[in-house]
Amino acid sequence: MTTASHALTGVVPPLLTPLTAEGEIDLPSLERLVGRLLEGGVDGIFALGSSGEVAFWDDARREAVLEAVTGTVAGQVPVIAGVIDMQTDRVIQHVRAAERFDLAGYVATAPFYAVTGPEEIERHFRAVAAATERPLWAYDIPVCVHTKLSPAQLLRLGQDGVIAGVKDSSGDDVSFRRLAAANRAAGSPLALLTGHEVVVDGAYLAGADGSVPGLGNVDPAGYVRMHRAAQAEDWAQVRVEQDRLAQLFEIVFQPTDKVGPAAGVGAFKTALRELGVFSTNVMASPMTPIEGEAVDRIREILAAVGLLDGAGARA
Amino acid sequence: MTTASHALTGVVPPLLTPLTAEGEIDLPSLERLVGRLLEGGVDGIFALGSSGEVAFWDDARREAVLEAVTGTVAGQVPVIAGVIDMQTDRVIQHVRAAERFDLAGYVATAPFYAVTGPEEIERHFRAVAAATERPLWAYDIPVCVHTKLSPAQLLRLGQDGVIAGVKDSSGDDVSFRRLAAANRAAGSPLALLTGHEVVVDGAYLAGADGSVPGLGNVDPAGYVRMHRAAQAEDWAQVRVEQDRLAQLFEIVFQPTDKVGPAAGVGAFKTALRELGVFSTNVMASPMTPIEGEAVDRIREILAAVGLLDGAGARA
Amino acid sequence: MTTASHALTGVVPPLLTPLTAEGEIDLPSLERLVGRLLEGGVDGIFALGSSGEVAFWDDARREAVLEAVTGTVAGQVPVIAGVIDMQTDRVIQHVRAAERFDLAGYVATAPFYAVTGPEEIERHFRAVAAATERPLWAYDIPVCVHTKLSPAQLLRLGQDGVIAGVKDSSGDDVSFRRLAAANRAAGSPLALLTGHEVVVDGAYLAGADGSVPGLGNVDPAGYVRMHRAAQAEDWAQVRVEQDRLAQLFEIVFQPTDKVGPAAGVGAFKTALRELGVFSTNVMASPMTPIEGEAVDRIREILAAVGLLDGAGARA
Amino acid sequence: MTTASHALTGVVPPLLTPLTAEGEIDLPSLERLVGRLLEGGVDGIFALGSSGEVAFWDDARREAVLEAVTGTVAGQVPVIAGVIDMQTDRVIQHVRAAERFDLAGYVATAPFYAVTGPEEIERHFRAVAAATERPLWAYDIPVCVHTKLSPAQLLRLGQDGVIAGVKDSSGDDVSFRRLAAANRAAGSPLALLTGHEVVVDGAYLAGADGSVPGLGNVDPAGYVRMHRAAQAEDWAQVRVEQDRLAQLFEIVFQPTDKVGPAAGVGAFKTALRELGVFSTNVMASPMTPIEGEAVDRIREILAAVGLLDGAGARA
Repeated sequence: MTTASHALTGVVPPLLTPLTAEGEIDLPSLERLVGRLLEGGVDGIFALGSSGEVAFWDDARREAVLEAVTGTVAGQVPVIAGVIDMQTDRVIQHVRAAERFDLAGYVATAPFYAVTGPEEIERHFRAVAAATERPLWAYDIPVCVHTKLSPAQLLRLGQDGVIAGVKDSSGDDVSFRRLAAANRAAGSPLALLTGHEVVVDGAYLAGADGSVPGLGNVDPAGYVRMHRAAQAEDWAQVRVEQDRLAQLFEIVFQPTDKVGPAAGVGAFKTALRELGVFSTNVMASPMTPIEGEAVDRIREILAAVGLLDGAGARA
Repeated sequence: MTTASHALTGVVPPLLTPLTAEGEIDLPSLERLVGRLLEGGVDGIFALGSSGEVAFWDDARREAVLEAVTGTVAGQVPVIAGVIDMQTDRVIQHVRAAERFDLAGYVATAPFYAVTGPEEIERHFRAVAAATERPLWAYDIPVCVHTKLSPAQLLRLGQDGVIAGVKDSSGDDVSFRRLAAANRAAGSPLALLTGHEVVVDGAYLAGADGSVPGLGNVDPAGYVRMHRAAQAEDWAQVRVEQDRLAQLFEIVFQPTDKVGPAAGVGAFKTALRELGVFSTNVMASPMTPIEGEAVDRIREILAAVGLLDGAGARA
Repeated sequence: MTTASHALTGVVPPLLTPLTAEGEIDLPSLERLVGRLLEGGVDGIFALGSSGEVAFWDDARREAVLEAVTGTVAGQVPVIAGVIDMQTDRVIQHVRAAERFDLAGYVATAPFYAVTGPEEIERHFRAVAAATERPLWAYDIPVCVHTKLSPAQLLRLGQDGVIAGVKDSSGDDVSFRRLAAANRAAGSPLALLTGHEVVVDGAYLAGADGSVPGLGNVDPAGYVRMHRAAQAEDWAQVRVEQDRLAQLFEIVFQPTDKVGPAAGVGAFKTALRELGVFSTNVMASPMTPIEGEAVDRIREILAAVGLLDGAGARA
Repeated sequence: MTTASHALTGVVPPLLTPLTAEGEIDLPSLERLVGRLLEGGVDGIFALGSSGEVAFWDDARREAVLEAVTGTVAGQVPVIAGVIDMQTDRVIQHVRAAERFDLAGYVATAPFYAVTGPEEIERHFRAVAAATERPLWAYDIPVCVHTKLSPAQLLRLGQDGVIAGVKDSSGDDVSFRRLAAANRAAGSPLALLTGHEVVVDGAYLAGADGSVPGLGNVDPAGYVRMHRAAQAEDWAQVRVEQDRLAQLFEIVFQPTDKVGPAAGVGAFKTALRELGVFSTNVMASPMTPIEGEAVDRIREILAAVGLLDGAGARA
């Protein structure tokens, strides 16, 4: 059996975690968000990813998120879950805690905090995969873990059935194309998803099987239309959709006093609040929400791409 | 007057500098290379770029290269020249030395060696542009200068007529798409060329006006075919050409004991020697040429993409 | 009340975690190690630091380590514990789990994995400090968390009673001296400990109150002698001790196929095995122990500094 | 013959280049600066270093600086000159241009701009050394060249007579101590100078033979006193001097809108103007001089360490 049968492809947004003013999981907002994604036609949902603020949740909160997400999604599409932590045994601890939920697989990064080399990375993924029957995805995100997974290592892990696919957030498109070409030459043991919201079109040309766009929380239908156009090889339309989504992505550059997820995820949450999907744009501690003129500029961008009408109500 | 009228678009390979066994400029090889590029249909030639080993030449050698290249090209296509150096006055010194040659413009990077901020970068490009009537291109190459040029700054320099275009070798495709979108919205004051050999297709979707591929020395016709297909919006063909060129690009990964241009430019020179275009694969001091099994693997790749026939003669 | 009263100074080694061949905590080895440290005259012990492989332990193992260490130390010297995790709430979770142990304080890093700015770092330390009555130490370790804590921020946190001290493993000695000078000028609200094994002498000149040397597991008496000499301002002797310890530190450069703690902590564990203190040099998963000729070279270095006699028995 | 006989030790400030309001070399200011250094007791002068703004000068200006400096110093102390450029042949070009001046040696960095590995670095230093009879110094400055020279490579180059010494501006004090220990064990083929103004005391403990402090332009006598105290092993006095110089070094942190030499060298030039040594604080293009409140704060620091009296005149 190859892992390819497990493969989840298409549009798989990394689900945001809406919070109440008190910082608790906001279930009504979560239900509206999931509804919006399903209505938009997404192929799956990635819970507890970086956009879901996974790094900020303690273990109890992580379980509460999985409980809420799997309960809300209720099997309508596959849900995969991030098991993000520093090193192997901690990742396996998260796998064990998640086994009781209805999940289609796990997503793990290379080890971080302690410096590790290729040997440790190889043993890490093999040990995590051995701890579960469910498919494992490799999450290549050097901006967070400060290690780049090599195409050769990823392909070997795929061929050995250790990982089912790769979520590429490396920003290294040369590496991604090399991986895509090598994967194709090897019979496509890996499903390849890109996490870069504004160059998904190029990733499709390179051979991506889908995308995991944080911005897909804000406009799932846009990413689904782009994916359908790519499958139909209607590249002119792919480009039109991508250009529009790139315009929308400018929301993350509006806060001038924030970096990292406080800016990016903060902008997504703010947009969803303005669109009436979220009740607040509250962020996990120690982050604070976007306020002031940046909110106005986010509204203008939402209006410019047709998500918000001129009067400010949801279009 | 806008700088747009100066704009050079299409395929503009960064010309390699062939050397004799003694390390002198190899004019017969240079003539064969230029002939190959012109026959392949390139739109221009970029002399003294990183692929031309500009960093390694002393001033006399730089002038000798410009003499040889402009003499060989002889006006058949526009030639632009790198004026790469650490800081403003040194760059202007190179501009002055190059004014006597038939050149269509200059290419300068952000300052390097001494750490500089946005204010200095802005003054740098303005001072270099003021030193010549010819168009100036900004060369965005953080791997060499350790500074990334921001889309906002590049666009402002374009709108003010300081720079005519950008050669993007940043590897930051998110930034490139943002620049392309902002440039379009501003009436396209900048010509945008990408230097990333294996993701040119995605750059075309994003809005690139052409490419500056080092690998274009080895297969100019392939890059020209891709450009023509992009202009015709025949994206299926663009992808076919790009995938083949990505396969060819694997030559740069064959030397396992070299990094930087000793590997990349070294692989291009070795390929051209095996193709009968260059007499040697000699590199500028302190680099040494690729030898041993890596040469065999480069030959295999050349054969696999149809540049070399099975018997080893040029296809 | 100022936090200064909590301050732990002098030699506070980051305790290694000895393992059995099966990867369980090796209590007899731990007892021998603690005995060696106390006999050497250390002023405190830092459990669950980077040298203690904290990043590799799941929560249950972390508690088991604290149980074993506090049980073995049994109040003979103060024990502080690392509460290392990605973001605020996870760190607080570790604080809560550790409150039942006899600890003199906690050690936390800046947030990591998710990119954060100074605002978040400030809120992070304040929130962790608010979660406990015990003193909090800031652990400045950019090689792991990829953020450098600024002297100004550390001093402000000290003056506000948020942190009691700093463990500096930044490798930025300019920053350390600036912090030491500013701290002195402010009445020394912070205790300053350096983690850089081979330049502790310079740190003492700069104003360090002590050290947290991983190598102190191997030769606690050497670090204690250096500290006593520094207190007596016998700098010639400080230098003699430091030079000898720097010679011993060469053990971490002997494994040529490992990086990070697999090399550094691995060398400490190997040395302690060769010295008869540890039963094995087993490392936390996914790391593997040092083997082969590197072990011989480590023995030679131990002999050269007088820790191992010529016949290989403990000197 | 070993290179050790060439060795220049003690205090060797990297000479600033004073400019007139029009940006020309300001000879009267240069004479005052050299007089101040000689009066302070320096052991040598390093012209065309990073603090001398070498990266900013074109070739004609570099020669003019050497002409002015060697003419002004007039053999009173040895002068060594930076031959800083991207790659080997360019560095040799600078050596050739400098041979006519009265110089005691050259200072070269690892290659930069183009990425190079250890093999190229080794060949680089050997080729530069072969181009002159004069001693060659290796300048280890990763912040500018983005490569760290390894202790093992530096020692080998020293033992082979390729380099006479090292100017260490790496900020890696662990590496510096390893180099110092290995150098001593090998019979001290290398003279070791540190460039880190505020931790020179620790470098002396580690085994430095002297310092190359940019701040030594502002207070040469302070660095000379520290060096004499270190030679006398009067470490208490070394520390007093170092702490005072660290307080003075705070001038470089006063400009809040500048980075790199625009801040650091800019602060030195501003201090020397306020001290009446320089006529202006003009910087090389594209940098601008420090203005506004930062100048006031620099004056306050100069006064605090006793270089400027309360009325603002030179103390």
